[in-house]
Amino acid sequence: MRLDHGFERAFDPRAVAVVGVSRSADKKHPGYSGLQFLRMLRGSGYKGQVCPVNPKADEIEGVRAYPSLAAVPEPLDLVIVTVPPASVPGVLEDCAAAGALNVHICTAGFGETGEAEGRGLDEVMREIALREGLRVVGPNCMGLHVPSVGLRMYEGLPLLQGPVAFLSQSGSLVHVFIAFASTLGVGCSKAISYGNALVMDAPDFLEYLATDPETQVICMYLEGIKDGRRLTELVRRITPQKPVIVWKSGLTESGARASASHTGSLAGDRQIWDAFFRQSGAIRVGSVGEMADLAMTFLRLRPSVGFRAAVLASGGGSNVASGDICGEEGLDVPAPSPETRARLMDFVPLINQSVVNPMDVPGVLTDIRLLKRALEILAADPVINIILLHPDTLLLGFIRGKSAEAIAELGEYVSDFARQNRDGKPIVAAMQPHEMVVVTEGLAQELREAGITVYSSLSRACRALNRFAGYYSSLAEGGEGAWPRRSPPKETSPAL
Amino acid sequence: MRLDHGFERAFDPRAVAVVGVSRSADKKHPGYSGLQFLRMLRGSGYKGQVCPVNPKADEIEGVRAYPSLAAVPEPLDLVIVTVPPASVPGVLEDCAAAGALNVHICTAGFGETGEAEGRGLDEVMREIALREGLRVVGPNCMGLHVPSVGLRMYEGLPLLQGPVAFLSQSGSLVHVFIAFASTLGVGCSKAISYGNALVMDAPDFLEYLATDPETQVICMYLEGIKDGRRLTELVRRITPQKPVIVWKSGLTESGARASASHTGSLAGDRQIWDAFFRQSGAIRVGSVGEMADLAMTFLRLRPSVGFRAAVLASGGGSNVASGDICGEEGLDVPAPSPETRARLMDFVPLINQSVVNPMDVPGVLTDIRLLKRALEILAADPVINIILLHPDTLLLGFIRGKSAEAIAELGEYVSDFARQNRDGKPIVAAMQPHEMVVVTEGLAQELREAGITVYSSLSRACRALNRFAGYYSSLAEGGEGAWPRRSPPKETSPAL
Repeated sequence: MRLDHGFERAFDPRAVAVVGVSRSADKKHPGYSGLQFLRMLRGSGYKGQVCPVNPKADEIEGVRAYPSLAAVPEPLDLVIVTVPPASVPGVLEDCAAAGALNVHICTAGFGETGEAEGRGLDEVMREIALREGLRVVGPNCMGLHVPSVGLRMYEGLPLLQGPVAFLSQSGSLVHVFIAFASTLGVGCSKAISYGNALVMDAPDFLEYLATDPETQVICMYLEGIKDGRRLTELVRRITPQKPVIVWKSGLTESGARASASHTGSLAGDRQIWDAFFRQSGAIRVGSVGEMADLAMTFLRLRPSVGFRAAVLASGGGSNVASGDICGEEGLDVPAPSPETRARLMDFVPLINQSVVNPMDVPGVLTDIRLLKRALEILAADPVINIILLHPDTLLLGFIRGKSAEAIAELGEYVSDFARQNRDGKPIVAAMQPHEMVVVTEGLAQELREAGITVYSSLSRACRALNRFAGYYSSLAEGGEGAWPRRSPPKETSPAL
Repeated sequence: MRLDHGFERAFDPRAVAVVGVSRSADKKHPGYSGLQFLRMLRGSGYKGQVCPVNPKADEIEGVRAYPSLAAVPEPLDLVIVTVPPASVPGVLEDCAAAGALNVHICTAGFGETGEAEGRGLDEVMREIALREGLRVVGPNCMGLHVPSVGLRMYEGLPLLQGPVAFLSQSGSLVHVFIAFASTLGVGCSKAISYGNALVMDAPDFLEYLATDPETQVICMYLEGIKDGRRLTELVRRITPQKPVIVWKSGLTESGARASASHTGSLAGDRQIWDAFFRQSGAIRVGSVGEMADLAMTFLRLRPSVGFRAAVLASGGGSNVASGDICGEEGLDVPAPSPETRARLMDFVPLINQSVVNPMDVPGVLTDIRLLKRALEILAADPVINIILLHPDTLLLGFIRGKSAEAIAELGEYVSDFARQNRDGKPIVAAMQPHEMVVVTEGLAQELREAGITVYSSLSRACRALNRFAGYYSSLAEGGEGAWPRRSPPKETSPAL
């Protein structure tokens, strides 16, 4: 179905009904119940009316309850349905009668079970929804997460606001994404978990997000899609304005089997999805982590069509491995110019360190005075347009062994440099969390706050930077996207 | 060169000389100095004689010092050389004169600098070593790490003993490997960091490790090799007795550049190395972590030529992704038999959970009673020959939220089951460390101690199990190794 005007009210509802709210938590069913939605609406800063529906209660946890949707006097911008599967069609009829057209069906147990009963219910629900013009999110999903108005998808999920939307068939992956993205400082405009996509599918939600002024970057987790052609066309139209980052799962035999039983989705053929990515300009990723990394990159770095990175690393063997990772992930790591090499070798010893690129320079990464000189030299070198700091696990351990003051001093200097050079070359860092190095996340936060973009490994940094540059390169060429690229693209604009 | 009889004494030396020991730590050069080697020999349980050599000192930190190697009365089984590059040839002559033929040259600054001076010194050193029959480890390396006799490569490096040897051109990767492998409970027989491989190269050390009774699994980190044919033949001969796990780096342009400046190695052509892996039966990995995972697998699991895994996971979307990971990494995850499916569905609800494989069963993973039933059912199913537990990040967070007693009870039960089923199907677990889930490593240790093999992610579990099964499958077929395989091999022996 196409979205009717009125769906946007679901994201800023004046009143929300929750149908199927028990008076006490049901210990037998540990899944999310109506009561849990009620509690989240009340505990997350939501300012509108909350209307629990339960024919046997006048009041639930101090909130006035209604025997039916018909009894609710407010115009309902959103109805959350948590009754058992067989009762859902009746609730949909009630929604239509009450003029409440935005319906989130949380309840599971339909087509995804593979049983005749569930499939029959699907048919009945689809008929009602289409006949009455219901805008149904679900079934079998967690619905909406809108930090700006206090709609929360899971208890305890961060409400950090920002310009990134996440559209996902899976609720638990919304949880993982929002929680992880928050640690990167990446906030959310809207997240939508839409499960089985009975009547509204990814393109319907995409149309809404395309015009949503709060959303600048769109992330999607897809298991299946009904109208692939429409999705391709839509993404192709959106992508010049807003990057669309897509994780498509279920492309192996066992993944497809899991997908069918999760959301009843037909995962589809690998070649068809390859064509989708080629034709639509969607940016392909393979995990929630890569998706958050890339969203962070779009929020933090200025547009660039290519990266020639200077990689400041440490540890001889690790440095060789770093070179391989950059090469395999398509990040361009050029040999330094003779001038830069000569200037660096004024203070980097020939022995046990190295200024070929990637550079094995533990001395530079642990001495503020030397780091300052190195950053200035690299900032002046036109061959280089991004500086990537990559202290290895051992060096992070060494940094942890230093006093807290020494760490703070180091962080402060790099931060100062980054601040003073906000219009200059970006500085990013890759720091692998490791059981030996608990300090990493604290250090990472400190650097992030100072304007340095921090990734959790070199591979992930390369992947995000490669796809980021690929997106802008594709736009500059006016061509279709085809990412990730495996080798550096030719540059079509001057270095940053 | 071929190893002469006598090299094995270097690994259990009655006396060690360290040439170039300052009386106080040199703040200007943060690299490892002779004094640091002296301190490590004294502080790591080494029982033999330690003989520092310094022409200007009678005694260093309470140890009698000698003016020259000639002045040392003991027969020296190992000489560690840390003097500046230009002085090394003279020390080699002294070693020869003193009959001390096992020499570790720690000093760097030779061919790897790319300068004429360093290359000239290489020639001189090579001539002396070959003329005098010196068994030179290095130069530009950290030498030997032998926990059983208290030879330690780096300050603070664990001395956990075990049957895994690590042969590495890089010293820092020995550090990372030993530290990480220790957290997995994987101990070391011998580690050798051999840097530039001036006269003794990987095959020479391999010949020693092949006959070393303390070594059952051989791991190698290679940047370059002089005699590829000899290495191939040697690995082919060793591999039926001891698996040889190899990480070859420097196969990209930037990796090769870093390799040349690290150990002066020519990294070689990708196709040549592909042929090496095909012909030799060496097992290919791409990082220290994968290497340690695989070594752990060889130590903990009984030989098997194939795995058909039941994957007990959690979270709908994560479960689809899990299926993809297993499929891409070549782990066989078959649909359960109708009987197993029916028996599991006695207690796994049809709604919101799933027993297709991978199985989305959060209820089972958090309820001891249900887990017990599931493990018993899967243990009885001949289709399945390994059980892989894969609670996702959210479930680990949930487990953390439970009381310490509940966690302990869960760990205890799974452990009990694993203990009682030591001769049955192996149980392994994949648990992704994550900033949100600090509990993981403690839980992992607990499970490891109970006989469950724990990997730090599902991908890494699949990779290790795939290569492990591939090794035994190749042996069973009497053919050459060609790993990793991308699809499950046909099984040539009954299920475990």
